[in-house]
Amino acid sequence: MPLHIKADPGSVAERVIASDSIKIVKQLSELLHGKLINSNRGFFLYTGSHMGIPVSTVYHGLGGPSESIVLEELAQLGVKRVIALETSVLSYRKEYSVMISSSASYDDGGTIGEYITPQKVVVSAVPSFGLLMKLDDAFTKRGIKHVIGQTLSVNTLTYEKTDEIKFLCTELHCAVLYVLSQIRGFESACVVIQDGGKNIPKKIIADIENSVSDAIIAE
Amino acid sequence: MPLHIKADPGSVAERVIASDSIKIVKQLSELLHGKLINSNRGFFLYTGSHMGIPVSTVYHGLGGPSESIVLEELAQLGVKRVIALETSVLSYRKEYSVMISSSASYDDGGTIGEYITPQKVVVSAVPSFGLLMKLDDAFTKRGIKHVIGQTLSVNTLTYEKTDEIKFLCTELHCAVLYVLSQIRGFESACVVIQDGGKNIPKKIIADIENSVSDAIIAE
Amino acid sequence: MPLHIKADPGSVAERVIASDSIKIVKQLSELLHGKLINSNRGFFLYTGSHMGIPVSTVYHGLGGPSESIVLEELAQLGVKRVIALETSVLSYRKEYSVMISSSASYDDGGTIGEYITPQKVVVSAVPSFGLLMKLDDAFTKRGIKHVIGQTLSVNTLTYEKTDEIKFLCTELHCAVLYVLSQIRGFESACVVIQDGGKNIPKKIIADIENSVSDAIIAE
Amino acid sequence: MPLHIKADPGSVAERVIASDSIKIVKQLSELLHGKLINSNRGFFLYTGSHMGIPVSTVYHGLGGPSESIVLEELAQLGVKRVIALETSVLSYRKEYSVMISSSASYDDGGTIGEYITPQKVVVSAVPSFGLLMKLDDAFTKRGIKHVIGQTLSVNTLTYEKTDEIKFLCTELHCAVLYVLSQIRGFESACVVIQDGGKNIPKKIIADIENSVSDAIIAE
Amino acid sequence: MPLHIKADPGSVAERVIASDSIKIVKQLSELLHGKLINSNRGFFLYTGSHMGIPVSTVYHGLGGPSESIVLEELAQLGVKRVIALETSVLSYRKEYSVMISSSASYDDGGTIGEYITPQKVVVSAVPSFGLLMKLDDAFTKRGIKHVIGQTLSVNTLTYEKTDEIKFLCTELHCAVLYVLSQIRGFESACVVIQDGGKNIPKKIIADIENSVSDAIIAE
Amino acid sequence: MPLHIKADPGSVAERVIASDSIKIVKQLSELLHGKLINSNRGFFLYTGSHMGIPVSTVYHGLGGPSESIVLEELAQLGVKRVIALETSVLSYRKEYSVMISSSASYDDGGTIGEYITPQKVVVSAVPSFGLLMKLDDAFTKRGIKHVIGQTLSVNTLTYEKTDEIKFLCTELHCAVLYVLSQIRGFESACVVIQDGGKNIPKKIIADIENSVSDAIIAE
Repeated sequence: MPLHIKADPGSVAERVIASDSIKIVKQLSELLHGKLINSNRGFFLYTGSHMGIPVSTVYHGLGGPSESIVLEELAQLGVKRVIALETSVLSYRKEYSVMISSSASYDDGGTIGEYITPQKVVVSAVPSFGLLMKLDDAFTKRGIKHVIGQTLSVNTLTYEKTDEIKFLCTELHCAVLYVLSQIRGFESACVVIQDGGKNIPKKIIADIENSVSDAIIAE
Repeated sequence: MPLHIKADPGSVAERVIASDSIKIVKQLSELLHGKLINSNRGFFLYTGSHMGIPVSTVYHGLGGPSESIVLEELAQLGVKRVIALETSVLSYRKEYSVMISSSASYDDGGTIGEYITPQKVVVSAVPSFGLLMKLDDAFTKRGIKHVIGQTLSVNTLTYEKTDEIKFLCTELHCAVLYVLSQIRGFESACVVIQDGGKNIPKKIIADIENSVSDAIIAE
Repeated sequence: MPLHIKADPGSVAERVIASDSIKIVKQLSELLHGKLINSNRGFFLYTGSHMGIPVSTVYHGLGGPSESIVLEELAQLGVKRVIALETSVLSYRKEYSVMISSSASYDDGGTIGEYITPQKVVVSAVPSFGLLMKLDDAFTKRGIKHVIGQTLSVNTLTYEKTDEIKFLCTELHCAVLYVLSQIRGFESACVVIQDGGKNIPKKIIADIENSVSDAIIAE
Repeated sequence: MPLHIKADPGSVAERVIASDSIKIVKQLSELLHGKLINSNRGFFLYTGSHMGIPVSTVYHGLGGPSESIVLEELAQLGVKRVIALETSVLSYRKEYSVMISSSASYDDGGTIGEYITPQKVVVSAVPSFGLLMKLDDAFTKRGIKHVIGQTLSVNTLTYEKTDEIKFLCTELHCAVLYVLSQIRGFESACVVIQDGGKNIPKKIIADIENSVSDAIIAE
Repeated sequence: MPLHIKADPGSVAERVIASDSIKIVKQLSELLHGKLINSNRGFFLYTGSHMGIPVSTVYHGLGGPSESIVLEELAQLGVKRVIALETSVLSYRKEYSVMISSSASYDDGGTIGEYITPQKVVVSAVPSFGLLMKLDDAFTKRGIKHVIGQTLSVNTLTYEKTDEIKFLCTELHCAVLYVLSQIRGFESACVVIQDGGKNIPKKIIADIENSVSDAIIAE
Repeated sequence: MPLHIKADPGSVAERVIASDSIKIVKQLSELLHGKLINSNRGFFLYTGSHMGIPVSTVYHGLGGPSESIVLEELAQLGVKRVIALETSVLSYRKEYSVMISSSASYDDGGTIGEYITPQKVVVSAVPSFGLLMKLDDAFTKRGIKHVIGQTLSVNTLTYEKTDEIKFLCTELHCAVLYVLSQIRGFESACVVIQDGGKNIPKKIIADIENSVSDAIIAE
């Protein structure tokens, strides 16, 4: 049993929707008719199902270190696929509400720096290509306007971006998810919602959550 | 009003005890007869008093990015002194239960890397000398065995330490607290409890919390 | 008129297939019924058409510096889309013959280091998502077995890779292409052929070249 | 017998006051009724006593490399406690004449870079907490106005400081002393005198030297 | 037989004049009455003789990676001395037409970064002192005005130089040549021609080529 | 008047022989029939003449920071040419007694790191080519066996060298001299004596000092 997520392997699904929003995790737990598996250290984890296929949802806190603790324990518990639905975001392009991160540039050092030992190689942090396509499909099918592009993962909300590259937004979590999924061997992809979804109608939020649930179970 | 901590400046005390443990924050809130001020994003913040002096206590999540968000917002709200009482820790010296961090070495990059721009200067992360002495006094007065020494602040719980320097423990939070307090201009110090306090009797935990409360109000 | 590629803007197509192989460029020039536009400095460039749409093909030499000179001049000449078909490669997975690079990790410094000024941000080097899908489609339609995955772009053929991340292969060119295309504003994607195509039947090589030509003109 | 300090272990005390000023070392040798033990390579070392307890004083030259040579040889000779009384200093706060360094930020690389191998960990350079308190006490008892705070250790006198952190002064020696004392296992603390003591009355200089001598022998 | 230069050890001379200009290599092949040994991958290599002593000349492409591939293969083939005659150059001092590089500063990382593993040591890239003197002599004897000084080796032609140090010019190749010759154990020196020799009369170019040929065979 | 070397511009010659050995500076002062100009901070400086041409000799302490202080002040005083005759050395090739450093690789950061701001450019530290030739001539004329080659400048005597490059020796001073002379605009070269000259007969030491004096005045 992991240190923070007090759960047996059997009680967590192989498909997990993770989030930095307690609210989204609670909404998803209703959508999945989920059962509370863990509340230790505030990392709420529910297991339910979508279209008959087991799916879990988990709150991973804010920032790479907290996220890495949860992802490491999910890996120990046998997770095979993770989609993150994140809300902590500084957007540069106000017009988009739903962003699929096709790659995440990131700050040197920090959480990723502790995973990648030989400093000479710059690891490009990218989602699983197939899962990215499933997300794109799922959003398209439910008619949700979305954009696919590069994001920048940082460690503080006050950080200023570089100008050479145009990013969709600055967020806190994509890069750690992508690098850990490569190292620990599970699929990953990430969706980021504009302004934490504050100005998005409830109905659309539900559609977004349903789309992510569609993608997490897609073959 | 800050983005995450939904509080007016007047409702948060100038003296704050922060923690990475929801449990400790709740216990402290009782000790301080505190009132819940914020629960948004899970950052529980209570304001009460110790010996007639207003004191707040807040949960800052796990890891530097989350901690930096809370500390930045506390600074916006006018905080003057922060003592952190942390539990996420990999100890090397099993005999100590209460550790006061007299300095925090840290991983290059990450959260601190986003605050310190000129990479050539290595900033030594240290608490406020006076507040460190107040903590030492407070623990001594209540007869709590403690040790003062250097800690290593990391970003993942799987990180392996360097061998050149002997640290009391590896933890997640001291360095960010020290560097931010220097930049934003408030006093800081940090106490780390062995193994998250798991093997420490409840009575001792209460004594530790009382000692920290003594130090936060000491002149 | 650029310094190395002695060509007028009008004489180079907006869609270019670049390669580190003179042989492949010559074969492509036949397939495109191309006309020789430049041979200065050995950077052979031909302009022809595929399915009635103008396409150029160009030899960019070996390694990032040489490649960056050619790409910079193509950008000056108004290029809008580049697919690279590369042969310099150290493969780790002997079974694959055609690899589409979905991201390129790379060595710190060197050519990319001269483009990205603030050293703190690690830029993830990725192809244009849409063009990557067009390549995948084109290979699928012509029945060519291929794999999509991460590659590692290096600067010497003697370089040893890191072990944390599993790459499809080590090659010399993808990362520079991806980063320059982001900075200069054109679409890009990259295909890498196992062992320079040495053990691939001529017929298959032609099919690969046709597939890349299909992708470069796809809407 | 070390390479530079031509002395037997028995002839050097376990408590040493080191300095970058030949003049201060000579004054201290009189105060300690010291005997000249070494003059080889200009590293004057005298051994005498204060209040009946053996104390040595040594000139370590200017800058980290020279200082590290002397400290390494003192460690070989069995030193247990070193207080440095330094004069090479660029002060930012003109009002202070005596500064106790509570931590030393420093330039990356150089002397410390050759001691700390894994570049990812940033070692915070700090004095021994207990010895720092002894210095504070000793100055207080003799009525010498002093300030405790962070200093910045550099390698050239022309170096410009960073602005994020407010330092008491820029000096040449504290960080190397602190890091070496951690690695070689002796106690250390450091006092820095404003403008090399040029504008301080002789009587005060003597009081400072007496205070440091008090601290070096304090239990 | 190497991977790119398809040649037997016996067919390549121990003394090689390398260049980033196909034109210069062809002119030199005539001067040396050389025979074409390789044209694979566009790396034209001719072997002939000067004053009865065997000399080869080879085109190594543009940029460090390409150059390193050719130099590595020359080392495998037993080369003992290499003089490079380079034309890719951004000059700062317009008055000089022939520059002998007495040292090459360079960009961190890239090709050299893959050869030098411990990042803490900055390797100064310099030619063989004796061969540098032979070049100086040869140019003097033929009455060719030349300057000896420091150059800066970069990886892109758009790179802006640093201002602390005054360089003769920015070029692409000297540093890689110098570092590889140190590691692989052959002599090296490098001449750089202003503006690729564009504004230099044909007669002078021939004299330069003859001077380099004199130096490559000098005892 | 500089801060450490208390001398007027007129009292220091434009040609200076610097050393890390007080003993060598004293011997040279006799050879030059020099007059003591400064003893402040232990930086002994004498001015005399060789063959009727004014020459000064100065002790610069041990290590780059101390050396940089002296060189900066010499530059302020109008120095035009400096030859260093150094003794702090860890030799790898025991057979050579006199080594002329033709380039100095060095440790990243430290003293040089404070002079060179843009970290991306690696500055190759080399002597003035002409002065190096004058030293070579002078030693040859007096029949002193010597070797010219690359040295490694470090900041501690305990530092272990890298293996990729073969250096004549590890020493403390050449790189700082070369970089400062480039920045401040004076000529420089450096001679390093095996084992500090301990095993070299007095007569030879005198010949070495005479050779350096010959070189410093050579046209």
